[in-house]
Amino acid sequence: MSETLLEPGEAHLPTPPAPAGGTALEVAARTARFVRETVIPVEREIIVDRRPVTDELRLELNAAARAAGVFGPLSPVEYGGLGLDFRGQAHVLGAAGESLVGPLALHCWAPDDGNIHLLDDACTTEQRERYLAPLASGEIRSAIAMTEPAPGTGSDPGMLRTTATRVGGDWSISGAKHLTTGADGAGFTIAVARTDVGPTMFLVDGDNPGMRVVRRMPTLDFSSAPGGHCEVVFDDCRVPGSTVLGEVGLGLEYASARLAPSRLTFCMNWLGLANRAHTLSATYITERHAFGVPIAEHGLAQGLVADNEIDIAAARALVHATAATLDELGATSSAARHGASIAKTFVSEAVWRVLDRSVQLFGGLGVCEDYLVARFLVEARAFRIYEGPSEVLRASVARRVFRRVGRRA
Amino acid sequence: MSETLLEPGEAHLPTPPAPAGGTALEVAARTARFVRETVIPVEREIIVDRRPVTDELRLELNAAARAAGVFGPLSPVEYGGLGLDFRGQAHVLGAAGESLVGPLALHCWAPDDGNIHLLDDACTTEQRERYLAPLASGEIRSAIAMTEPAPGTGSDPGMLRTTATRVGGDWSISGAKHLTTGADGAGFTIAVARTDVGPTMFLVDGDNPGMRVVRRMPTLDFSSAPGGHCEVVFDDCRVPGSTVLGEVGLGLEYASARLAPSRLTFCMNWLGLANRAHTLSATYITERHAFGVPIAEHGLAQGLVADNEIDIAAARALVHATAATLDELGATSSAARHGASIAKTFVSEAVWRVLDRSVQLFGGLGVCEDYLVARFLVEARAFRIYEGPSEVLRASVARRVFRRVGRRA
Amino acid sequence: MSETLLEPGEAHLPTPPAPAGGTALEVAARTARFVRETVIPVEREIIVDRRPVTDELRLELNAAARAAGVFGPLSPVEYGGLGLDFRGQAHVLGAAGESLVGPLALHCWAPDDGNIHLLDDACTTEQRERYLAPLASGEIRSAIAMTEPAPGTGSDPGMLRTTATRVGGDWSISGAKHLTTGADGAGFTIAVARTDVGPTMFLVDGDNPGMRVVRRMPTLDFSSAPGGHCEVVFDDCRVPGSTVLGEVGLGLEYASARLAPSRLTFCMNWLGLANRAHTLSATYITERHAFGVPIAEHGLAQGLVADNEIDIAAARALVHATAATLDELGATSSAARHGASIAKTFVSEAVWRVLDRSVQLFGGLGVCEDYLVARFLVEARAFRIYEGPSEVLRASVARRVFRRVGRRA
Amino acid sequence: MSETLLEPGEAHLPTPPAPAGGTALEVAARTARFVRETVIPVEREIIVDRRPVTDELRLELNAAARAAGVFGPLSPVEYGGLGLDFRGQAHVLGAAGESLVGPLALHCWAPDDGNIHLLDDACTTEQRERYLAPLASGEIRSAIAMTEPAPGTGSDPGMLRTTATRVGGDWSISGAKHLTTGADGAGFTIAVARTDVGPTMFLVDGDNPGMRVVRRMPTLDFSSAPGGHCEVVFDDCRVPGSTVLGEVGLGLEYASARLAPSRLTFCMNWLGLANRAHTLSATYITERHAFGVPIAEHGLAQGLVADNEIDIAAARALVHATAATLDELGATSSAARHGASIAKTFVSEAVWRVLDRSVQLFGGLGVCEDYLVARFLVEARAFRIYEGPSEVLRASVARRVFRRVGRRA
Repeated sequence: MSETLLEPGEAHLPTPPAPAGGTALEVAARTARFVRETVIPVEREIIVDRRPVTDELRLELNAAARAAGVFGPLSPVEYGGLGLDFRGQAHVLGAAGESLVGPLALHCWAPDDGNIHLLDDACTTEQRERYLAPLASGEIRSAIAMTEPAPGTGSDPGMLRTTATRVGGDWSISGAKHLTTGADGAGFTIAVARTDVGPTMFLVDGDNPGMRVVRRMPTLDFSSAPGGHCEVVFDDCRVPGSTVLGEVGLGLEYASARLAPSRLTFCMNWLGLANRAHTLSATYITERHAFGVPIAEHGLAQGLVADNEIDIAAARALVHATAATLDELGATSSAARHGASIAKTFVSEAVWRVLDRSVQLFGGLGVCEDYLVARFLVEARAFRIYEGPSEVLRASVARRVFRRVGRRA
Repeated sequence: MSETLLEPGEAHLPTPPAPAGGTALEVAARTARFVRETVIPVEREIIVDRRPVTDELRLELNAAARAAGVFGPLSPVEYGGLGLDFRGQAHVLGAAGESLVGPLALHCWAPDDGNIHLLDDACTTEQRERYLAPLASGEIRSAIAMTEPAPGTGSDPGMLRTTATRVGGDWSISGAKHLTTGADGAGFTIAVARTDVGPTMFLVDGDNPGMRVVRRMPTLDFSSAPGGHCEVVFDDCRVPGSTVLGEVGLGLEYASARLAPSRLTFCMNWLGLANRAHTLSATYITERHAFGVPIAEHGLAQGLVADNEIDIAAARALVHATAATLDELGATSSAARHGASIAKTFVSEAVWRVLDRSVQLFGGLGVCEDYLVARFLVEARAFRIYEGPSEVLRASVARRVFRRVGRRA
Repeated sequence: MSETLLEPGEAHLPTPPAPAGGTALEVAARTARFVRETVIPVEREIIVDRRPVTDELRLELNAAARAAGVFGPLSPVEYGGLGLDFRGQAHVLGAAGESLVGPLALHCWAPDDGNIHLLDDACTTEQRERYLAPLASGEIRSAIAMTEPAPGTGSDPGMLRTTATRVGGDWSISGAKHLTTGADGAGFTIAVARTDVGPTMFLVDGDNPGMRVVRRMPTLDFSSAPGGHCEVVFDDCRVPGSTVLGEVGLGLEYASARLAPSRLTFCMNWLGLANRAHTLSATYITERHAFGVPIAEHGLAQGLVADNEIDIAAARALVHATAATLDELGATSSAARHGASIAKTFVSEAVWRVLDRSVQLFGGLGVCEDYLVARFLVEARAFRIYEGPSEVLRASVARRVFRRVGRRA
Repeated sequence: MSETLLEPGEAHLPTPPAPAGGTALEVAARTARFVRETVIPVEREIIVDRRPVTDELRLELNAAARAAGVFGPLSPVEYGGLGLDFRGQAHVLGAAGESLVGPLALHCWAPDDGNIHLLDDACTTEQRERYLAPLASGEIRSAIAMTEPAPGTGSDPGMLRTTATRVGGDWSISGAKHLTTGADGAGFTIAVARTDVGPTMFLVDGDNPGMRVVRRMPTLDFSSAPGGHCEVVFDDCRVPGSTVLGEVGLGLEYASARLAPSRLTFCMNWLGLANRAHTLSATYITERHAFGVPIAEHGLAQGLVADNEIDIAAARALVHATAATLDELGATSSAARHGASIAKTFVSEAVWRVLDRSVQLFGGLGVCEDYLVARFLVEARAFRIYEGPSEVLRASVARRVFRRVGRRA
């Protein structure tokens, strides 16, 4: 791992101790080894041999991660996790992300990552036991049902159409959702619905008969998670009052608070994959020849490799700096939200560029999934959209700038 | 069609009469209707319902195209084609390309497009009858086997490893190829092999037992052609002397001569698809709302739409201008080669940008194949690589510039 | 000139006869020679020796252009011009633009180019004689006073603050303008002012005491025109009713009608300069060595040269195609306006990229004005802003796209 | 300063104590105030009123900086400097760079910044007293004469043509240099010349009659330093043996060692200017209206502002991370060199983009020097070339990547 530490943009930033399992750097080193030895062989089966990504596979990988001392980088220690702060996560998730299924193996993949943060902040003691404990320990998976088909909410939470009405001490939820990540097979789903006092979050058990997974949508990303992106219907879905997450009417505040951590862990995971593709493609062109010399001798290929290195270095430095902001000022601070929006926009676009250049460096083989980078590219396309499309984030970043310069003027 | 004519970059360029079937503009208008009414419903089955792209489907679409008077825009009239010049093709292929399987339906898709050009130029009377006639009429498909696994030829034809040696009046071909487009089920394959007097092209019948399709490679593009991109092995593959295409030893000259037309028809076809995605996504955002207004009211979305329109207009103008060069100076002229390299580089990158922005405009649904643009994007990735990666083309373009400025100095 | 004709994106487009002085191609060939032999030596004095660009110099260059048979490509034949249509102008202005002062020498430079178009369309017989005749013949220069300091009009003509009120048969104009191109020393200025029935254009003589040039603003572009970009004050500026250009209240319609031609001639002129910088820088790197070979052998330098060639080819094709639209459908047609907005956006940004890469190719000498490209770059910065910033144009392009797809749906 | 700390990419990175004058953050806070109150008024005189940047002005600003407790952030404490490490410099130089002449005022501007580093590392006790002491204290300025006209050295130090030969105990230097930054009026010039045992550095006094400043070259950057970029001739320039800097024959090693610090301080200074332009332009569009609302309400303007914020955040994070590498591993370590090459490439291009967008946001006024950003843009163009053009740096970055992946394979 020591050489990884010397990679551009990462070196010599503060690396706090991990509450469990040694320092974050030691966990990162173990993670790198675990990914290389255990995860990448499975990834090849998934991509090349079309092995399906099932919950069985997830549990198998989680067990292996636990055995390797790298399970649960963002799960609380009390539930068997490593309880790392964001700076520590930046190191470990970067190493996990080097494989498309590394984050699944370590249990730091969407939407569970954000949901763990959210529940850790917002749930009651009873909910902790019933929902957070099995989720954080990897016993179950979770989903979050926010986005809706038109004319419901997409990027604009103000357009929420799913409703929840009180029926005695219970609630009845009705409405349609889509792009509900992880819903198929989830232990529970966090459903966001409109009540008479405002949007509210509910914890809906996976076996609730009022919630139906209509289908997995045929999205470009399907190799990295067992639960798909689903169309879901809530049809008079009854849940007890004790399933309200946090306060009634504050659902969007919780959704918003969930965003900075989930955006940043997204960045950490994907940056690892970009780095892997960079290494694969740079290595490939040192070996493959054209016009009398290794492709690595050609200036335009060097340019692609250098741009990959530069993009990764800048993205990594930004992720580590933003992680420090979340640690120091809190994940719900204005600085954290602004920083996470900036990081998500920059890193998602940088990762896309790196993966695209890596495909290009492989030439014709770059579009053949046997060489992995083709699949990495396709899986990554959604990163620039999920958890806030770049355009929505840019508008939000600009508005914060206007507020800042207004304060100064 | 008249409104299409008014689209930016296309209007008022010269539109010569078509040898058969009215003017090129009339054929283009018929093509637009045919694609809309007949091809797009099939495309939806292919993308959404996973209907396989078989030869049976191809023949069915070809028959429908013939009935609609739009079959064979670049096939000679004597073989039932429309015999359009490049300027005419620019109009018709642009309309055909609006669907991912439009070019297959009209029989102007790779590698048959380039192979028809090549055979029309280079083959003997006997070969015309035996190979060109059934190919041009759509009775059979063809393949071209050039690219090889390392350490064989990729972008550099000088690295050709497959050999052909004389055995009496016959030739014996041995070697491995990959990315052999269309090989699975092809009526014949043009094999490029090294002989004692230089690289040579051979016409290998589809049932020749010495040529074996090892597998279809799992490439990102699989929805648009029935023959795949294959690994192929030639193992003492015997072909008679009469199957040499053109002259022994001049294989690379023929390969090179094939490039300007095939690069330009690629541009025409893909530009149509980019335009379709542009229309789909621009339409979508006029209907979908966010933050109180249609997404089309948001400036950053407008920017994406405008950039799509601008990229398409510039690409279209460049394609039409380059087509005129090929028509007037000949497809093997230096100006044509230079122009086609420029057009391929610019258009392949512009198409990619347009498709990528179209996905982004659809938000989360953009990565769901039901909305088609996700699949368009993935299928298009290879366009920046096949028939010459952008980097190789850029080096070639620069060298021609240096020759030009050297001549002037 | 014949080799210029073969440059990418330009070849084989229709080249109509010029009303005077042979075909447009012949005029372009003469222009190329005139620029090379007569204009470029003066350009060097201006840039390197800081020779001021005066009206005396302008008249001297105009006389030389007239002697060379290339004066007035867009001036009507009756006033000694060449009366070329837009397609012809594309060839000739492209050749003129190869020098920063070529368009001034030929008298096709802003704002006179757009003003000649505007007056030719809109003025009375008396105004033709008094204003258009001396302007078209180059006897005088003109200005247009539209843009105002905040809170007046910038890109948004609805914010016009300068007023014109009737005083008997005369008008009294009052208000402040800035960025009034060419005002210092102009024979007349077209002033846009708000009247009780709407914005109106007035022809204000250069010696009218009610109009005062406060100062030339210190803009980055100062080497290409004698009149500067000025702050101007109208203070009870009296003009007779006969100086109204066109109809009272329709000033913005005329301003708008002026835009498509002026945007397109801008593109033609600047594209010439980009091509010159491209040739200069490509030539330089074939001669200068680094790391044992000419810089031209380095792949990343080749990439810059190829990108220049590609940008110029696409821009040129788009300019020629748009010129055809203006010729065939009229400069005020919706297609012409849309096309000119697209062309202005693409070409202004392509020209900027080309000039920037040319500077880069010269290395440290690229920022030294002795090598000219540094000055070209700085002068060109305003091209992306004047006559409509790219962002305003993009919004306008997008809105036309929405109207088109709406019509189709 | 506290608000600066909250800016994206900067927050919560380690901030070591300054050897003099409090913590680096306190110095940065003082610098911000000093720049705002003292330097920016002078900057306006320079840009708007064309006040020349003389040595008199420099000394005046230096005195004011000393009075404000911010003089000499990278000068050793023993010579009146602040002796900050690179992490501390990142904070202080970022604040100084907010004005084009801030770095001159604080005495951390090229080439003195790199020369102080170099002399501090390499010179003898006697040279320390004679050269480093007055340089570090700001009593004199210095120059470095490396680059030569063709066919001499540009980016490739192997092409050095200036020679130094022994004449008794002295050396005789002969050759021509250009782009010799700061030579006009320098107290001494570091001349790089070829000897029989290899390239060597010499300290040439400003009044040495064998060294002649031929002229200041008319470069785009002229507002930020009193010494220009000069053509210099060494004509049998005699210097004693005691003026050799470091060891004879190791000149390129010293030149190379100088690069990482000088590249990084360049980044720090220019990033400050980019941030200033960002603030100016974002503020401007909150005040200027178009189409009924402040320009800040327009999506495409928001996009430009957001991209500025994102570029600055990424650049800042990268600069701070790279500073930490230099501090921890040493400025001549391989990691430091690699990191500084990456940072220089990314930051110089990010700064350029930010300045360019800032000009665009000002619209027509953006190209008018009164609004400062026009001049900032022009002055910054050289940053992508001086101290290594982006293309040369990219090739170097790629080669280090190949070595890294080779080690791993």
